Amino acid sequence: MNLINGIAGATISVRDRGLAYGDGVFRTFPVRQGKPVWWQRQYAKLAQDCAALKIDCPSRDTFESDLSLLDTRDCVVKIIVTRGNSVRGYAPPSASAPTRVVASSPLPEYPGTHATQGVKVHLCNLRLAAQPALAAVKHLNRLENVLARAEWSDSTVAEGLLCDAADNVIGGTMSNLFIAKAGALVTPDLTACGVAGVTRDTVIEFAGSHAIPLQVKAISLDDLFAADEVFVVNSVIGVWPVIALERKAWAAGPLTLQMQRWIADAQNA
Amino acid sequence: MNLINGIAGATISVRDRGLAYGDGVFRTFPVRQGKPVWWQRQYAKLAQDCAALKIDCPSRDTFESDLSLLDTRDCVVKIIVTRGNSVRGYAPPSASAPTRVVASSPLPEYPGTHATQGVKVHLCNLRLAAQPALAAVKHLNRLENVLARAEWSDSTVAEGLLCDAADNVIGGTMSNLFIAKAGALVTPDLTACGVAGVTRDTVIEFAGSHAIPLQVKAISLDDLFAADEVFVVNSVIGVWPVIALERKAWAAGPLTLQMQRWIADAQNA
Repeated sequence: MNLINGIAGATISVRDRGLAYGDGVFRTFPVRQGKPVWWQRQYAKLAQDCAALKIDCPSRDTFESDLSLLDTRDCVVKIIVTRGNSVRGYAPPSASAPTRVVASSPLPEYPGTHATQGVKVHLCNLRLAAQPALAAVKHLNRLENVLARAEWSDSTVAEGLLCDAADNVIGGTMSNLFIAKAGALVTPDLTACGVAGVTRDTVIEFAGSHAIPLQVKAISLDDLFAADEVFVVNSVIGVWPVIALERKAWAAGPLTLQMQRWIADAQNA
Repeated sequence: MNLINGIAGATISVRDRGLAYGDGVFRTFPVRQGKPVWWQRQYAKLAQDCAALKIDCPSRDTFESDLSLLDTRDCVVKIIVTRGNSVRGYAPPSASAPTRVVASSPLPEYPGTHATQGVKVHLCNLRLAAQPALAAVKHLNRLENVLARAEWSDSTVAEGLLCDAADNVIGGTMSNLFIAKAGALVTPDLTACGVAGVTRDTVIEFAGSHAIPLQVKAISLDDLFAADEVFVVNSVIGVWPVIALERKAWAAGPLTLQMQRWIADAQNA
């Protein structure tokens, strides 16, 4: 089911700047038993990302009204907000009405072992470009992710890891990354590229509230391969332990499994 | 007027990957007296850009059939080809039918003096990110151009110039750039960022056929300010001399005006 500006439909204008330029932002999150998981956090990020692009974000009430119209109690919801329509040309119109899309899809059927036993990941060849003006924002310019995801078709590989041009690991194609080393967590700095997800923020918060040391800093490939534990997170998958990357193998470690429980509990709260 | 997959319409699917990810390419060119200007060159670029993203480009005949249905003899046509619809997720579907959009707009009403006397340009603060995997391709991930174009609202400024992170000039927000120095032309190397337009290629060809030395190489800001002549080009504007950038002023120089005549003649041929 799709709602476009609150009305059930299947299409948007061919003149929408979301299509023309990727001039918009999005969020993806599960709805479980009719309840959008971490909705307040998702809305806060959406509003923040709209602000980064100077797009007028529709109100939380507006989206809550849309969400109440969805016909499924368990699904994945994708929200898109674009700058709306305009005449030809890059200049953002001075007065534009944003387009909002709220679309539901079936929850993905990942093997249960992804969470319990961990996943094999691919090290992507594509290197993420450094663009501080757009870094961390979940915008609609996602060709890098598409090209990276197209690098493998082996269905036993659950995710791909992306580096920047200096071979620092930035995250997964659809997830954020954490490593554990000597009892402390590290997650990549996203000031030049990558997307800052809601689950990443939550992991950082939980580390803080449970006195687990955590640093946000560059993670080199050497750091990654030398890590005690590696895991990837997003709102739909929760926490997946990473257990294989090229010839390196890890166990699903204690910090990873602890964080997985906290995230699952918080999502179900 | 818009044709979506050959049929008059105003909308595309909200599940199109062009909206979701900017997963597609486009071209923009004038139609004059019912004739798409440099159509063969435009189609060749479109096919080349589709190939770069591994999108099946519809045939030239298909587009020619679309173009023949347009209801205006003088207009700007924008062609978009996306990877089409897919279920949620970055992975390109193994069998996807591309979406093609052919949309006409009125020819822009630029002041005639832009071509005859030249234009004032803005030096953009935004720096283009280096992404060799997408450089030169006219894809739908154009947020950098949108942010750059949003930097000025002074209507006497006709274009903005964009640099990369090393402060090499790459081009305009909607145009390619050339400088002249001591009788030779230089245009930026686009192997890490920027868009390679049809008019850029044509200027390079004309320089070759008229024995005007031309190099494709990095142009620093110092090179730019030290140039004898500066001009920007695209299929819609032709050639605009650049006559002012910050406190620097140029004349519309002889190489610029010569190239402008050749381009105009070739477009009208």
